[in-house]
Amino acid sequence: MSTRDGQSVEFTKGHGTQNDFVVLPDPQVRLALTPARVAALCDRRRGLGADGVLRVATAGRLHAAGVLAELPAGVGPDDWFMDYRNADGSVAEMCGNGVRVFAHYLACRGLAGSDRFVVGSRAGARPVVVHSAGAVLGEVTVDMGPLRVLGESTATLTGWGYGGLGVDVGNPHLACVDSSLTAESLAKLDLTAPPGYDPDMFPRGVNIEILTGLDANGGVDMRVYERGVGETRSCGTGTVAAAAAALAAGGFDLATGSGEATVRVPGGQVRVGLRAGAAWLRGPSELVASGELAADWWDAQ
Amino acid sequence: MSTRDGQSVEFTKGHGTQNDFVVLPDPQVRLALTPARVAALCDRRRGLGADGVLRVATAGRLHAAGVLAELPAGVGPDDWFMDYRNADGSVAEMCGNGVRVFAHYLACRGLAGSDRFVVGSRAGARPVVVHSAGAVLGEVTVDMGPLRVLGESTATLTGWGYGGLGVDVGNPHLACVDSSLTAESLAKLDLTAPPGYDPDMFPRGVNIEILTGLDANGGVDMRVYERGVGETRSCGTGTVAAAAAALAAGGFDLATGSGEATVRVPGGQVRVGLRAGAAWLRGPSELVASGELAADWWDAQ
Repeated sequence: MSTRDGQSVEFTKGHGTQNDFVVLPDPQVRLALTPARVAALCDRRRGLGADGVLRVATAGRLHAAGVLAELPAGVGPDDWFMDYRNADGSVAEMCGNGVRVFAHYLACRGLAGSDRFVVGSRAGARPVVVHSAGAVLGEVTVDMGPLRVLGESTATLTGWGYGGLGVDVGNPHLACVDSSLTAESLAKLDLTAPPGYDPDMFPRGVNIEILTGLDANGGVDMRVYERGVGETRSCGTGTVAAAAAALAAGGFDLATGSGEATVRVPGGQVRVGLRAGAAWLRGPSELVASGELAADWWDAQ
Repeated sequence: MSTRDGQSVEFTKGHGTQNDFVVLPDPQVRLALTPARVAALCDRRRGLGADGVLRVATAGRLHAAGVLAELPAGVGPDDWFMDYRNADGSVAEMCGNGVRVFAHYLACRGLAGSDRFVVGSRAGARPVVVHSAGAVLGEVTVDMGPLRVLGESTATLTGWGYGGLGVDVGNPHLACVDSSLTAESLAKLDLTAPPGYDPDMFPRGVNIEILTGLDANGGVDMRVYERGVGETRSCGTGTVAAAAAALAAGGFDLATGSGEATVRVPGGQVRVGLRAGAAWLRGPSELVASGELAADWWDAQ
């Protein structure tokens, strides 16, 4: 079966705070994004290599092609839809760093029409503001929607317990503020082994953030262990959970308050805002290279 | 300073048994391949990602541009020269998997003129035979030159000693045959920590191969721990050392004998031939994608 109808397979490689993606423009939804093909593409030695794939098509076209069973709440048929796939080929609902790269790509290729638009995702509509969209560097704010506070719990790391706040940002997080940590001592923590957590509270696993307390400038340093992956250089939803936990530790009321924090991760830094239980995330995007996948390679996967 | 004279920076991404490379065609030697730029390009999240960079230019042009102080023995000014850089930006002399990808690239782009030609490297001339050079798949034999047997030594892995043969293939190896290992038990060995070795025998470190004995079909299974890197999915010179050690363990005389072995590594398999103290290596190459690096990104590194 031809999966390309004689078309080449274009790509752009980019990253948001070093969470990296292969962007696949596919306006006619001609690409058969099988799990095997996504996994081969994301394999860092036998493919191009990435944390995930972002297919670019409108929600209506993806629906007509059967990729989307229905349009998620708030997403119109003409909205661009981030068809996100994890590196293992599985479908994911949302990716806070990926949506910045997706919006930057649309804006700098002239596909967005405006600097404010809605990106569709399986978790629902994600309104974005594109502050800049250069050929390489971009800056995007994403409306991350409501948070859900799950309560307090404890993560265990190399035998030590870290008290944290469970926060659902579309996916579950346990964000542990340790005000005795500095950026330096945080960097030295051993995050090679999976931290322990309460499986009754997080039956499907949890992403764990360890962070410093807020500094005088409203900043925190954070590291993250993503469930099923290991430590990564950044996690968009994790930075939102971390900002929420850091502000809450200072007495901030997540349900009604309004505040902001800068979150520094190994891959860069982002700005998180919280207002009445909802969050936005502002940060950089970088588009590194563009080209074509060898057609025979694509077909063979 | 402009490093490109207004030219774009083309690339091709490929791999040989999952040892992967960014090929940079640079016939006019216009690219300033600084260590920082190579390291950024090879970074798997903020760049394209690769184990190394293969710049493509003739030996004469590289010499005229001051990249090569002199032409290595056997390399003529019109020979294509593999200007190899490690992922950390440092210069390397040779790479047994890289030279297959390099030769495949030249042949399939019509730059080679013939299916038998010389690839220049800092370790000297490497004659190649290109058996096939499709748009994606290629098959290349490389003359790896003479081996130098360094004598017996022992590697230590998770508290166990593995007796091995020291072999210099342009770089030092300690290839340890353990005939009690099967492919399955080899796959289970813990190679996360650096194996121990005799620093008096290997003052600049050593690459360590652990392998099964030769099977009835002349094949071995091998894993490799590369010095300064960790376990990798393949190492071209390592497969040569492994074949030499496996044949020697069966009584083969490396100085005068003639024999062959198939070496299976996690990234695929290659064929190694030994004759009167010299070696050839035959194996696959795969070209995955081609495109252009964003010019502003390149200039900013």
